[in-house]
Amino acid sequence: MGALGEAHLSATAVVAACDYYEEEEEEEEEHDVVEAPVDAMEPAVRALLLGLGEDARREGLRRTPKRVAKAFRDGTRGYKQKVKDIIQGALFPEVGVDKRTGSAGGTGGQVVVRDIDLFSYCESCLLPFSIQCHVGYVPSGGRVVGLSKLSRVADVFAKRLQNPQRLANEVCRALHASIQPAGVAVALQCRHIPLPENLKCETLQGWISTSHSSCSGIFEGENSSFWNDFSMLIKLRGIDMERVSHSASISWCPLRSCEVPICNGHGKKATINGAISPKSVPAPSNMVSAVSSMLLSLGEDPSRKELLGTPLRYVQWLMKFRACNLDVKLNGFKLNNFSVCECPAGDAIDHRAIHSELHLPFCAQCEHHLLPFYGVVHIGYFSSGDGGMIDRSHFQALVHFFGCKLQVQERMTRQIAEAVYSASRGGAIVVVEANHICMVSRGVEKLRSSTATIAVLGQFLTDPSAKAHFLHNILDATGLAI
Amino acid sequence: MGALGEAHLSATAVVAACDYYEEEEEEEEEHDVVEAPVDAMEPAVRALLLGLGEDARREGLRRTPKRVAKAFRDGTRGYKQKVKDIIQGALFPEVGVDKRTGSAGGTGGQVVVRDIDLFSYCESCLLPFSIQCHVGYVPSGGRVVGLSKLSRVADVFAKRLQNPQRLANEVCRALHASIQPAGVAVALQCRHIPLPENLKCETLQGWISTSHSSCSGIFEGENSSFWNDFSMLIKLRGIDMERVSHSASISWCPLRSCEVPICNGHGKKATINGAISPKSVPAPSNMVSAVSSMLLSLGEDPSRKELLGTPLRYVQWLMKFRACNLDVKLNGFKLNNFSVCECPAGDAIDHRAIHSELHLPFCAQCEHHLLPFYGVVHIGYFSSGDGGMIDRSHFQALVHFFGCKLQVQERMTRQIAEAVYSASRGGAIVVVEANHICMVSRGVEKLRSSTATIAVLGQFLTDPSAKAHFLHNILDATGLAI
Repeated sequence: MGALGEAHLSATAVVAACDYYEEEEEEEEEHDVVEAPVDAMEPAVRALLLGLGEDARREGLRRTPKRVAKAFRDGTRGYKQKVKDIIQGALFPEVGVDKRTGSAGGTGGQVVVRDIDLFSYCESCLLPFSIQCHVGYVPSGGRVVGLSKLSRVADVFAKRLQNPQRLANEVCRALHASIQPAGVAVALQCRHIPLPENLKCETLQGWISTSHSSCSGIFEGENSSFWNDFSMLIKLRGIDMERVSHSASISWCPLRSCEVPICNGHGKKATINGAISPKSVPAPSNMVSAVSSMLLSLGEDPSRKELLGTPLRYVQWLMKFRACNLDVKLNGFKLNNFSVCECPAGDAIDHRAIHSELHLPFCAQCEHHLLPFYGVVHIGYFSSGDGGMIDRSHFQALVHFFGCKLQVQERMTRQIAEAVYSASRGGAIVVVEANHICMVSRGVEKLRSSTATIAVLGQFLTDPSAKAHFLHNILDATGLAI
Repeated sequence: MGALGEAHLSATAVVAACDYYEEEEEEEEEHDVVEAPVDAMEPAVRALLLGLGEDARREGLRRTPKRVAKAFRDGTRGYKQKVKDIIQGALFPEVGVDKRTGSAGGTGGQVVVRDIDLFSYCESCLLPFSIQCHVGYVPSGGRVVGLSKLSRVADVFAKRLQNPQRLANEVCRALHASIQPAGVAVALQCRHIPLPENLKCETLQGWISTSHSSCSGIFEGENSSFWNDFSMLIKLRGIDMERVSHSASISWCPLRSCEVPICNGHGKKATINGAISPKSVPAPSNMVSAVSSMLLSLGEDPSRKELLGTPLRYVQWLMKFRACNLDVKLNGFKLNNFSVCECPAGDAIDHRAIHSELHLPFCAQCEHHLLPFYGVVHIGYFSSGDGGMIDRSHFQALVHFFGCKLQVQERMTRQIAEAVYSASRGGAIVVVEANHICMVSRGVEKLRSSTATIAVLGQFLTDPSAKAHFLHNILDATGLAI
């Protein structure tokens, strides 16, 4: 077979990469379901911003429609990619692999690529979800496939609007058809962001986790020794996964209105909590139809069964971050504009007066990309002259007030610091640690990256030892102190 | 400032992405040091393959020159990217940030993006090295920069032939010049693959680790409280790093012939062991000049000081994987072609006769990409009729023999299994777990992925319980058994 077709792959990949950066040049030639014009995406996003009570012309939002359109195009580029082009250039003849197609003769060899990190979009709510993908196959027909192609093919199907089980099935089927091996096994561990109110903290507590698998050929059957080997080889990476196959029609999405029992990461039954009923959150019809037109723009059919409630759910998600500029009831916080009362230099500061409220969880919506960023807020303050402490619930309300909207982390950090400072007067310090989905699900794909911001006011600004004391408190609480 | 320049970024990024896939279209317009024609890369790689004693026409190698050329072009695409284009489109006005340039007024806010995973190429030997990058800055001039741009700018300089300290300096300088903040801090943790003989096992034992930092503006000075905050904010991710700045001229590369004291990841002094003298490994001059022409092709100047010994060192590295088809001295292994003696079905198998040699380290060279893959081999066998056990050192020699050459993991697994089987006669099983640098440093960039292969012969093939017994042995030894 050789690598004759690699040029085909190249051509396809170039198209996909270019689309992401220059949608002006995009042509929807490969789809015939498209009815809305390509540039319907950006007006639709502008309609969503208006519906959220935002001024779409302000600087941070001005190019958000362009960015969101780009991200959705990139996130669904798999519709345009052809598996055949990827695989046919990368099949290598290999002595020792049984020449008969579908046979696992010879050394009974199995090849497993473990821990392929992917991102996809939930077809029920249009939010990205993360995937840890493991792919195994048993070569036959006298040839093996280039290892990176297993990852590339999985990504073709991840870059679509998906449901985890269908993703597993499609990757399995495509690899089997294109490689023609003795069999294919696919195991996925997927994670979906929960409703903001169920997000616990920076680590993945509260996330919806499911496991899915799909297999073909000699991996099939309850007692397949090939499946057992596959299971053992991924167990060597600490991944314990039973064979789990769900109906692709069962949804895990927390934005679905009905409660659906699903399997969590450990193979046990879990129930999705916090599901919302369609009536609980207002979803203006013009916003819903804007999302429908976005789906059309992406070449999707909004009337396909799995997408029927999607525009509504996406709008319901967004409406959780609606601007509420008039609502400044901050549970006891008085947002007076105190003048800054700096502590005279040289004064001894009593560190016992420093109070810390650590690991307050939040979920905000990045105003540049309309994607969540989430994590924890650490707050430090000097108790004011009358020595009064502030209850943790008030800080949590404050974090929710400044966090649950279209935001940027830098501004949120400063706003919380200013609010705390106005209440405490002595000094305020705020550290925000967050994971930005826009940093992992879009082009830059820095999966492990995490952003920390800090804002400092009053005595924390004038006394470095007070700041150091607070930062050490966080280290202590995180179990990282030396 | 707004996001006016984003179109510029798009154009540049498209050029870079396309280059990687279609080098035919590449034009070296931005470089004037180029003397060799663009297509000198592929003939040069073919010359290297010949020098390694390989038949460049055989199927697995036929398109290797094309793949290697692509990977090097992609790995050095940073020479063509302009930081200004990336940044100027992503500066956002932000209330609360001091309007004066270079001032850290307001809330003294600092922004740190931690754990940006990057790959670069060592200018001393042309092997890729991995980077964990942390970038902080203090906004000024009334604006902040989009978070993902910090990662993109770092990548511009990573995608060049680099030295870790120069990389830190260049990222710092470029961010300072383009964002004009109050200051920038950059911390890098870099890892370089050691000489094959010093690679201990799948985990990163034996790797050369160094830490580097660079800073500007208000981060400078021994007592900068901004540097202290930066240090604390990365410590919250478990990263303990003192301020470490080396001369960019000191090399960490294990292929340098002289012993150079450098700093390891924990800030302590370490000495690079296993350095080779130029005379210890033969390096045919036509191979060395082939690598020089590759450097020219990439727009580099082979006579620049840092690159002077690079072609020689790269050839010395490759020559460690030279084909040695005539050398079949396998320390006691007799590679006779025994016919397969399958155990009659139904016979009870005594699992006490199964011997395991686990975690035998290896480093091979992927024949598709001329990049290392490394990891561990687990071997199981039935002792032969005379009950003789085989010494571990013999297995290690066997692994070295089949591993230390241009290989693919599937073939290496089968070859080791067949050799063990020919010596043991009862049955042989081999599991290879490996990290492929071609899976992380090229386009597909699956950093955490790891490939497992298995080959089974004789009694392990006929008796699933024998296979399961051996696989459980590996789990046990890895501390993963349930």
